[in-house]
Amino acid sequence: MFKVLLKQGNARRCEFITVHGTIQTPAFMNVATSAAIKGALSAFDLKEIGCQVMLSNTYHLHVRPGDDVIYDMGGLHKFSRWDGPILTDSGGFQVFSLASLRKIKEEGVSFNSHVDGRHIFMGPEESMQIQSHLGSTVAMAFDECVENPAKYEYAKESCGRTERWLERCKTEMTRLNSLDSAINKKQLLFGINQGATYEDLRIANMKKIAEMNLDGYAIGGLAVGEPKEVMYKIISAVEPYMPAEKPRYLMGVGTPGNIIEGVSRGVDLFDCVMPSRNARHGHLNTSKGIINLNNQKYERDPLPIDPECDCPTCKNFSRSYIRHLFKSKEMLAMRLCVMHNLYFYNNLMLRIRNSLEEGSFDRFYNENVELLDKRI
Amino acid sequence: MFKVLLKQGNARRCEFITVHGTIQTPAFMNVATSAAIKGALSAFDLKEIGCQVMLSNTYHLHVRPGDDVIYDMGGLHKFSRWDGPILTDSGGFQVFSLASLRKIKEEGVSFNSHVDGRHIFMGPEESMQIQSHLGSTVAMAFDECVENPAKYEYAKESCGRTERWLERCKTEMTRLNSLDSAINKKQLLFGINQGATYEDLRIANMKKIAEMNLDGYAIGGLAVGEPKEVMYKIISAVEPYMPAEKPRYLMGVGTPGNIIEGVSRGVDLFDCVMPSRNARHGHLNTSKGIINLNNQKYERDPLPIDPECDCPTCKNFSRSYIRHLFKSKEMLAMRLCVMHNLYFYNNLMLRIRNSLEEGSFDRFYNENVELLDKRI
Repeated sequence: MFKVLLKQGNARRCEFITVHGTIQTPAFMNVATSAAIKGALSAFDLKEIGCQVMLSNTYHLHVRPGDDVIYDMGGLHKFSRWDGPILTDSGGFQVFSLASLRKIKEEGVSFNSHVDGRHIFMGPEESMQIQSHLGSTVAMAFDECVENPAKYEYAKESCGRTERWLERCKTEMTRLNSLDSAINKKQLLFGINQGATYEDLRIANMKKIAEMNLDGYAIGGLAVGEPKEVMYKIISAVEPYMPAEKPRYLMGVGTPGNIIEGVSRGVDLFDCVMPSRNARHGHLNTSKGIINLNNQKYERDPLPIDPECDCPTCKNFSRSYIRHLFKSKEMLAMRLCVMHNLYFYNNLMLRIRNSLEEGSFDRFYNENVELLDKRI
Repeated sequence: MFKVLLKQGNARRCEFITVHGTIQTPAFMNVATSAAIKGALSAFDLKEIGCQVMLSNTYHLHVRPGDDVIYDMGGLHKFSRWDGPILTDSGGFQVFSLASLRKIKEEGVSFNSHVDGRHIFMGPEESMQIQSHLGSTVAMAFDECVENPAKYEYAKESCGRTERWLERCKTEMTRLNSLDSAINKKQLLFGINQGATYEDLRIANMKKIAEMNLDGYAIGGLAVGEPKEVMYKIISAVEPYMPAEKPRYLMGVGTPGNIIEGVSRGVDLFDCVMPSRNARHGHLNTSKGIINLNNQKYERDPLPIDPECDCPTCKNFSRSYIRHLFKSKEMLAMRLCVMHNLYFYNNLMLRIRNSLEEGSFDRFYNENVELLDKRI
């Protein structure tokens, strides 16, 4: 169930109620590709840093350990010990970005695994079956993610196929949810808007999938090479055609500034590997902009990463200590920094929600949209 | 202050009271080489796994970040956030095992850093000064650790030099503790028994250093290549000459079986990188022996690493999940396994202490000395 609590311009403050708990939106989903957050974080750490939704990757888990293993262990929740909402992607994006020797047909995609070269076929039915095995809260539709820039004709053809795949996803998910053997019989299905950077294709596709009455709608195929202005233009173009009473998810986005822009355009959900990846290289989000902890000037700095931050890292450790851990190649450096950056993102969403509730989102936007992306 | 609470045979149950807290012995010290436990554990994790003493390496911290940096940050306790007792080694062992182009003279050792090749001189005074900068609870004397097997004449000559170095360590530590600028004005100094595998050299050395009234005594230069029977023989040979009212520390030892043997011969303190290193490779201590979690048979095993273990890892995660994390090269695998193995060691010491208090150490010895080292 999804409730729009209030709006300020296009920005929305909503509640997304699932069998695994209620998500306060706008929300950032924390990426646990292989059922673990990179940087040695466990499901219990996620609770401590304010995570609401864990996102895991269908392709990775299908290849290793195998979704049948996770099914036998009782599903992704029991396996990872995360008891809140989980969104699984469809595997589509990884099939198109990681796997080799792929062939796209109407039935689906055949490719070789990037881990062991094993030949794998994945179509809409297979993607739904794998996600049903994982037992996630929200399954994503199996789609083709076209690289930007894409030729118009190819983007149009791909869009049509993705729409037909979506029909098959819905049929298969309905069937799977009716099985006694399903781990989560109320697994939700989100459709994904595609159409590269062509507004007419994007809008036509959005209108079409909106009619299918899915549990939510994502905008896919952005933040894959196009300038950010193009991304914002596409969001604004399709937003009027997204069902207002359903959650809206902008896939793979992005910087704090990108997220604030997304919220201002009516997006509810986000995910991105950027905060954890940056953290593992010592690039850290703060309330004053982004710092690089490898910088010599932090050698004897007794301050926390962000003096205004209440995360477990900032409450306890100094820049000097964490910088030393990086220089000494101690894994603890990555862990402390991933904790911080993910907390920063989760807390950013909390600040956005608070500003919406206080009617001050415009001011929050003006004060932070550029500041938070600045390298200082 | 050190109190022998009770004895059973040569095994001792003691209390070692320091300015940073009381250590219940026999105890295992947890190795945090560069002021962090390898495997992404923080000082707060150490509390959770029952660690009593953290051990850090003088050589590593001198080379990186520099003991002057740690001194400026308020010492090792403030830097790492571990507030319990810390023992620092002298740097001697690493100078002899890690550094290159080393030259030993009466004054000390000159060598090149293994990190940046920088030329460094370290003698007894320098080692004490660095350890004083770190502000540890217990400083170790600067010694030469001779490789086994060693020639008798060389071992004898080295022993003599190490004894002269010990006199200089004591003088320098007394001076440093009297300075207003000292972080820990009550820093303790342990002497180290050497003499390779020659009982007469070991005993002569032990008698000599026992007269110096140091705060504790270590047996060094064992577990460096000799058979374990030789190690046990040396411990039994020197033990009668170790002051009974002072803590006794067997350096760099060892397996659970080695530790039980050490306790039975009158040793109070141990340290070893083995549990954390083994853990990072999936080799895990259990109450039934050592398991290799990489084994295919654990793929769908819902049990914890050790069903009899109460560590944070075993309370929450399955063998199946942790094995998957190893296969997926997720850092969390190492963290969970290091937590487990160190907890196992800390808990082993607790079980030994309990058996001593209950007068059942002999039974504990018989039941576990071989079992715990067995690969199953």
